[in-house]
Amino acid sequence: MIKRIHHIGIAVADLDAAARVFGEAVGLPDGGREDVPSAQTRVHFFPVGESRFELLRPLAEDSPVGRFLEKRGPGLHHVCLEVDDVEAEARRMREAGVEFLTEAPVPGAHGARVIFVHPRSTGGLLLELSEFPATGEDAK
Amino acid sequence: MIKRIHHIGIAVADLDAAARVFGEAVGLPDGGREDVPSAQTRVHFFPVGESRFELLRPLAEDSPVGRFLEKRGPGLHHVCLEVDDVEAEARRMREAGVEFLTEAPVPGAHGARVIFVHPRSTGGLLLELSEFPATGEDAK
Repeated sequence: MIKRIHHIGIAVADLDAAARVFGEAVGLPDGGREDVPSAQTRVHFFPVGESRFELLRPLAEDSPVGRFLEKRGPGLHHVCLEVDDVEAEARRMREAGVEFLTEAPVPGAHGARVIFVHPRSTGGLLLELSEFPATGEDAK
Repeated sequence: MIKRIHHIGIAVADLDAAARVFGEAVGLPDGGREDVPSAQTRVHFFPVGESRFELLRPLAEDSPVGRFLEKRGPGLHHVCLEVDDVEAEARRMREAGVEFLTEAPVPGAHGARVIFVHPRSTGGLLLELSEFPATGEDAK
């Protein structure tokens, strides 16, 4: 089951400047910042409704977000859907012809298990599926 | 007040193919299709949680989404935040230094009043603010 849009990832070159825009100027609450070594990013969260923006600054030029910035410039990077069972959803979508970037889900931040749909399956959208641990505020 | 992510707009070249992906393959419920002449787009909706995807096919090459497709190819186009008072939010953001594409809000679909933040104010994100009529299912 697909539950909600968990977050919208936005690639930024200057995390402090972008955080000032989303926090002070747009006026969203500040959800804090953390490093996600597995994705080679530093992330600043801004919750809105049941979702949140995740501003993504690459920690290395030769990383997925670093290469995205170099190629396309800052802006919308990916959308993450929260699912209840990432294996089951990926299997179902694969049977319907969807291609993924990895064979199986991989560990994400906060104990999540994530898999990315290949953009060529969605007409250009990088779509992440995430299953979060059943309890704990990290699932928010 | 910013209430929620109302929708994520995705520019597509082939609306039927993209709708099959989001509907049949990803498995989101079909929210229907309509033309939005003011935006020169044909839009197919796929609800998820309190938000929805809006697949946008341009009705003219020389339109904002048509030019986006030609320049950047298909993919994430914009994010719309629902606000309770679009004039008040735009005024507040403008005082904080945010630039908009138009001086004042303009009519959108379903009686909404909308204004777009200039991407240079957000570090590359095209952000729409929409205020919907107080009642009626169109506000969904």
